[in-house]
Amino acid sequence: MQTSESLAGKPVVVLLSGGLDSATCLALASNAGARVHALTIDYNQRHRIELQAAKTLADRYAVQRHIILPLDLRSFGGSALTADIDVPKQGVQPGIPITYVPARNTIFLSVALGWAEAVGAADLMIGVNALDYSGYPDCRPEFVAAFEAMANLATKAGVEGSARYAVHTPLLALSKAGIVQLAAREGLDMGLTWSCYDPTPDGLHCGRCDSCRLRQKGFAEAGIADPTGYA
Amino acid sequence: MQTSESLAGKPVVVLLSGGLDSATCLALASNAGARVHALTIDYNQRHRIELQAAKTLADRYAVQRHIILPLDLRSFGGSALTADIDVPKQGVQPGIPITYVPARNTIFLSVALGWAEAVGAADLMIGVNALDYSGYPDCRPEFVAAFEAMANLATKAGVEGSARYAVHTPLLALSKAGIVQLAAREGLDMGLTWSCYDPTPDGLHCGRCDSCRLRQKGFAEAGIADPTGYA
Repeated sequence: MQTSESLAGKPVVVLLSGGLDSATCLALASNAGARVHALTIDYNQRHRIELQAAKTLADRYAVQRHIILPLDLRSFGGSALTADIDVPKQGVQPGIPITYVPARNTIFLSVALGWAEAVGAADLMIGVNALDYSGYPDCRPEFVAAFEAMANLATKAGVEGSARYAVHTPLLALSKAGIVQLAAREGLDMGLTWSCYDPTPDGLHCGRCDSCRLRQKGFAEAGIADPTGYA
Repeated sequence: MQTSESLAGKPVVVLLSGGLDSATCLALASNAGARVHALTIDYNQRHRIELQAAKTLADRYAVQRHIILPLDLRSFGGSALTADIDVPKQGVQPGIPITYVPARNTIFLSVALGWAEAVGAADLMIGVNALDYSGYPDCRPEFVAAFEAMANLATKAGVEGSARYAVHTPLLALSKAGIVQLAAREGLDMGLTWSCYDPTPDGLHCGRCDSCRLRQKGFAEAGIADPTGYA
């Protein structure tokens, strides 16, 4: 679902990559008074620096618990983020890009669902957005709806009726500029977030991958100063 | 889907726990001429001895590739298989048992989907069965159908139409006795498989957990000698 009902006092599993979108979700859930369980998947991604950003953000928001779970998707390959394939730098192209990681959000939401059921949470939150996005199929509302339907058939809590799982996607209909504006309203220190797929050796954003381009465009269109260090 | 179309020559990702059911799937896929990609998840389960059974079986069937992927569900707890909760020994009870691992099959199928997409496979196989089973929600046909629907919305291959994902569940409508008979027909050496949730220190099946009881019942009702070493 796109808009969140009140999450005050509820346990919520927030998928936290360390990027701008997931950090905005963290801020939203935390400011709404949710008991945030932050889940970061270490999938052996090329841009491992985002794991440190996730940890810094989880600490900043004093979440109930932060788990960084190793799940090595590099075993499978098939993406510029998990195999020895160059990250494209020529600008955002039409179609689904090579940085798409096969079934990544499906895997991440499934793991989040497992944690949610174990701690008695019925609410998951993920920072997907279908506008101004990178063309990933698992960022679309029809995917999210299908996942929710599946989750309620997959679980003890869903089948017994003690939980009705909801996947909250508060950024779904926002442009990147809209996300930057929302993050600013929520008081997020966006300088703590990490977007770049191909960091420089000295820890700067490359400024040329799709993710950097979308980030820059978002700040520019929002009219908000970009705190990011670009190469 | 319950029955398999011809899988000859096709890449198929088979979830292989090392148990009797998944080993029967492995035998079926291999005997059908599929190019088997066997996926075993090391979820830090109590009965880690099944990982060795999976390796032995994958070797025996000379699969294209066998991945044992660490994914530590013990981080979450919530099950007798992944937390310090005693495995029940009093016999199979009505309802969903404490050995249910939150969202386990959802997580396993999602990871299998990621590998499938990376290698260009459209077929997954999992040894769930909804008769004579342990009462797990993620072993039911409605769950499997919901997962298939989700998978085709989640993936690049599904969205672009280059693959139509199918989850093959050849054991879905079989009793445990029926699975034992099928395994025997397929020539599976069932002595290589592992079922017990609570192995003895010297590597025997305990004979009293639900999984052992179902195994014993299956062999007895099938009228086939049980090669298992019980405590």
